[in-house]
Amino acid sequence: MNKAIVIFSGGQDSTTCLIQAQQHFDEIHCVTFDYGQRHKQEIEVARNICKKLEVYQHKIMDVTLLNELSISALTRDDIPVPSQHYDQDIPSSFVPGRNILFLTLAGIYAYQIGAKTLITGVCETDFSNYPDCRHDFVQAQQKVLSLGMDYELDIQTPLMWLTKAETWALADQYKQLEFIKNETLTCYNGIIGTGCQSCIACDLRQKGLEAYLASKENELHHSTTHNFL
Amino acid sequence: MNKAIVIFSGGQDSTTCLIQAQQHFDEIHCVTFDYGQRHKQEIEVARNICKKLEVYQHKIMDVTLLNELSISALTRDDIPVPSQHYDQDIPSSFVPGRNILFLTLAGIYAYQIGAKTLITGVCETDFSNYPDCRHDFVQAQQKVLSLGMDYELDIQTPLMWLTKAETWALADQYKQLEFIKNETLTCYNGIIGTGCQSCIACDLRQKGLEAYLASKENELHHSTTHNFL
Repeated sequence: MNKAIVIFSGGQDSTTCLIQAQQHFDEIHCVTFDYGQRHKQEIEVARNICKKLEVYQHKIMDVTLLNELSISALTRDDIPVPSQHYDQDIPSSFVPGRNILFLTLAGIYAYQIGAKTLITGVCETDFSNYPDCRHDFVQAQQKVLSLGMDYELDIQTPLMWLTKAETWALADQYKQLEFIKNETLTCYNGIIGTGCQSCIACDLRQKGLEAYLASKENELHHSTTHNFL
Repeated sequence: MNKAIVIFSGGQDSTTCLIQAQQHFDEIHCVTFDYGQRHKQEIEVARNICKKLEVYQHKIMDVTLLNELSISALTRDDIPVPSQHYDQDIPSSFVPGRNILFLTLAGIYAYQIGAKTLITGVCETDFSNYPDCRHDFVQAQQKVLSLGMDYELDIQTPLMWLTKAETWALADQYKQLEFIKNETLTCYNGIIGTGCQSCIACDLRQKGLEAYLASKENELHHSTTHNFL
């Protein structure tokens, strides 16, 4: 049995990973982390996509313990908050190392069900540039999980070097562009599909889509021109 | 401020680490993981030791999500349990990679409070030989946390190459042998101090103590003899 775990948020990236994985694996287990997201519908969206795409198993994992690790929960009045770590755009509830935790939990899950592959949609070309989404980090995390469980585990990051336009191209290649466009949730304001169209996540998604559609049209035009010659 | 995190179970090993750390750090935060241990008194013992040793802060972290990752919680009837991974002596509730998770959470905690040092009492000479307690693993985990949080973190394992006799010697060196002997809980049957004296943990602890006391007496005898010459 060819099994894989997909870390699955119900957004554009992880849904594209899931669709691609369905071409290569017999049994896919999606893992969604519930850490008390602002938008509870994220979980619902993830659940619906898994149903529609007939995913073998969808595990929603409660990681609200992340809240226990937020600065506000940890510090006492006499401990100065290390504010230099924080970007102004990052909400105070953001916990660094979150992706380390998610990969660790998903890795343990992989071991338990006997899956040798773990897929995550993290991406270096993305705007976020979180250190725990970089290639070097993922390689190191793969080593830690393999060593620490004495179990060979492969962490795959199919989107690592793709632009958003290329991620849209990938979805289109699998004939799922419309599905991704309508059924996934990327918007920071919690609006499914095209989203609020004003937050940074919607902007990135929309510009990527436009860039992809423009290049597709351009290519179509070229190939039509070519056919005429 | 010279801060350190000590991963703290209230057993002999982590208490020895704590006592040693108190010589070197101004502010120590102990982290105890509550994963629904068979013996709830483990948590109580840890709490009491922290009070008695006047630890700056004692954080008890709820990691009952580990239970969600046990085989029984994950598998469906049609998924064969990968029984080859399990030693007969390991209870079915044991989750591989547990220490990876603990180090990850403690590492995030360290980042949040601005501690650069994380201390854990894991030991290669111990009987357990869990892969996530080995030196190479700890080195890899240190790299993952440092890379993934872009934060230089040092994981110290003062007991890594010590025998149990040497760990007792360390406690004695800090004049805390009696404290460790009476106040810590190592016993699998949940009995504080000298324990049930029949489980493997009590056996290891007791044999280590006897070996240390014998070597101490021997040395004392030699030095006395020497004085007579």
